Amino acid sequence: MHVVITGGAGFLGQRLARKILEQGVLTDSANRLSTVDRLTLVDVVPANDFGDARIKSVVGDIADAALVRELIGADVGSVFHLAAIVSGQAEADFDLGMRINLDATRLLLEACRAQGNRPKFVFTSSVAVYGGALPEVVQDATALNPRSSYGVEKAIGELLVNEYSRRGYIDGRVLRLPTISVRPGKPNKAASSFASGIIREPLNGEEAVCPVAPETRLWLLSPRGAIRALLRGHEIAGDALGDSRTLNLPGVSVSVAEMVEALRRAGGEDAVARIRWEADATVARIVGGWPAVWDASRALALGLEGDADFDAVVRAYVEDDLRGGR
Amino acid sequence: MHVVITGGAGFLGQRLARKILEQGVLTDSANRLSTVDRLTLVDVVPANDFGDARIKSVVGDIADAALVRELIGADVGSVFHLAAIVSGQAEADFDLGMRINLDATRLLLEACRAQGNRPKFVFTSSVAVYGGALPEVVQDATALNPRSSYGVEKAIGELLVNEYSRRGYIDGRVLRLPTISVRPGKPNKAASSFASGIIREPLNGEEAVCPVAPETRLWLLSPRGAIRALLRGHEIAGDALGDSRTLNLPGVSVSVAEMVEALRRAGGEDAVARIRWEADATVARIVGGWPAVWDASRALALGLEGDADFDAVVRAYVEDDLRGGR
Ligand SMILES: NC(=O)c1ccc[n+]([C@@H]2O[C@H](COP(=O)([O-])OP(=O)(O)OC[C@H]3O[C@@H](n4cnc5c(N)ncnc54)[C@H](O)[C@@H]3O)[C@@H](O)[C@H]2O)c1
Ligand SMILES: NC(=O)c1ccc[n+]([C@@H]2O[C@H](COP(=O)([O-])OP(=O)(O)OC[C@H]3O[C@@H](n4cnc5c(N)ncnc54)[C@H](O)[C@@H]3O)[C@@H](O)[C@H]2O)c1
Repeated sequence: MHVVITGGAGFLGQRLARKILEQGVLTDSANRLSTVDRLTLVDVVPANDFGDARIKSVVGDIADAALVRELIGADVGSVFHLAAIVSGQAEADFDLGMRINLDATRLLLEACRAQGNRPKFVFTSSVAVYGGALPEVVQDATALNPRSSYGVEKAIGELLVNEYSRRGYIDGRVLRLPTISVRPGKPNKAASSFASGIIREPLNGEEAVCPVAPETRLWLLSPRGAIRALLRGHEIAGDALGDSRTLNLPGVSVSVAEMVEALRRAGGEDAVARIRWEADATVARIVGGWPAVWDASRALALGLEGDADFDAVVRAYVEDDLRGGR
Repeated sequence: MHVVITGGAGFLGQRLARKILEQGVLTDSANRLSTVDRLTLVDVVPANDFGDARIKSVVGDIADAALVRELIGADVGSVFHLAAIVSGQAEADFDLGMRINLDATRLLLEACRAQGNRPKFVFTSSVAVYGGALPEVVQDATALNPRSSYGVEKAIGELLVNEYSRRGYIDGRVLRLPTISVRPGKPNKAASSFASGIIREPLNGEEAVCPVAPETRLWLLSPRGAIRALLRGHEIAGDALGDSRTLNLPGVSVSVAEMVEALRRAGGEDAVARIRWEADATVARIVGGWPAVWDASRALALGLEGDADFDAVVRAYVEDDLRGGR
């Protein structure tokens, strides 16, 4: 079985690739356990191939129709579509966001449809599909009122993945991820970048800027949890999903103040002192409009798991990334 | 002010055009009452221009980018985007539905954006954006789970109109119409075509086929009511709509059995005897998934009105259409 990961050089793409290589098998859309003998990572920047012969790294733009048709051959059993323009950048450059988050998603779906073998298709959505007035706990039946270009593009992607599944063109699944924290590496252009930065930078002895108020509540998932969710979300039998292909993934609901308390427990007063509070109205507006908690019971019943609490999230970062772990 | 109606040769397009010519003025996006000195009707079939010099009928495909750019000049103050591939046809021909209902909508929005003068943009959506398990009375906050290609395409159009409005590219408004009944003329390829046919054909001495069970409940609006709603929906000040540009329009909730009773009152036993009951599983599935009633209080508060009851709907048909009225 040939698996394709778009955005394969990205944060989740690289971790997912390593995990798939490690386990060596995935369940195909006919519910058979299949050996992964080819794993294509496509990205605009070169992906690490971990020196594994099964990996092919393709550098290219998934908004390029010819490339996408070439990528999705008849042997492709699964696509993890992770490539995206993140929230801050999609807000700043509307055309770019529409081209990658919407048009390229459609090109991929069309290429899958053209093969006629109904591949599995995992699409990563986000808290940003919600917005406007929300109930205290967001439910599966809560309307999407995205208030950012990124959120709108993800919401459209969700509709398309559900529709292509309903028509039998793909075996799709939409995983609505909580904000991923603690993400290693450098800050990025996501509006939620600080949700990793205020833990990561202080633990690395660096200063971090927090653009939102301490009361701001976030819905978070560790990178470990996200990779577990991507794999489990892929493995679920299509029948178990039925008509609705969208799952609100489990997370932990914490305020920024509670995150700072967890930082204090992990890194002491010195770490906490490295946070500089500097309000940013745009970030506060975007992030403040996202749900702070949603009902994940459907995902939980299907075997998807979150983190125990935010201390566990910080511990996962310390174990997997801070101490040079993978 | 130049007004463009896409689908201007269609059922609602023609009636709307006549009404706009009659009243001669519309409120522009700066809230000024403006004289309509030009009204362009674009459609793949020639529109009636009622011999009025203000009307220009353009025969063309709104999925043609060059045509759309030409249509939406700097003088366009309002677009009523009514052109669509109806539900039954969009289900039968996926590519056609996506091209007209989605791609062409985007072309129009892009052309409006390119002008930079933030025109009003009225988009007609439908009960078909809803589906799956629904509360007894659908609310503004109820999630969209469309279960037809038409419904998905309309739901995406809604997201785009809201997003283009949020970004200040247009002054958009999405009017979610109930099913229009009683529509004059011939049956069409909409799954809901019967909702007019079972009244219209018997009153015209012809046989009608009813493909759904008598218990089926529908949410209906007369053509008169629809035109009133399109105009009122256009006139509302953008500020009054705020962040959410989508309105669930008032309707009457009736069962098919109740519709038949109204037919009996208007046309007697002979009329009722002309209905042939012949189940169609596809139509029953599509229509049965639509809401039978939704909360229209937001629209009502903004001055949009429905019909008094289904007898009034039948009366409107008899007055406006059956007796050769307009
Ligand atoms: N990390 C989070 O907090 C989070 C939360 C919710 C959803 N998601 C979603 O999960 C997915 C993966 O997120 P991530 O954190 O790994 O993001 P990332 O930015 O690290 O990875 C995305 C990758 O996509 C690539 N890419 C961008 N445009 C491309 C193009 N035109 N063609 C090919 N590749 C392109 C980028 O180069 C990047 O490597 C994204 O879809 C994101 O929207 C992430
Ligand atoms: N009538 C209803 O029950 C109802 C209910 C809800 C929503 N709506 C929506 O209201 C709008 C108008 O409905 P209607 O009843 O007048 O439909 P209609 O089918 O009578 O009119 C639509 C018109 O669009 C035209 N058209 C189709 N493809 C085109 C293209 N590529 N380029 C240019 N024109 C094209 C058709 O020729 C037709 O004249 C549609 O968007 C419809 O989806 C209607």
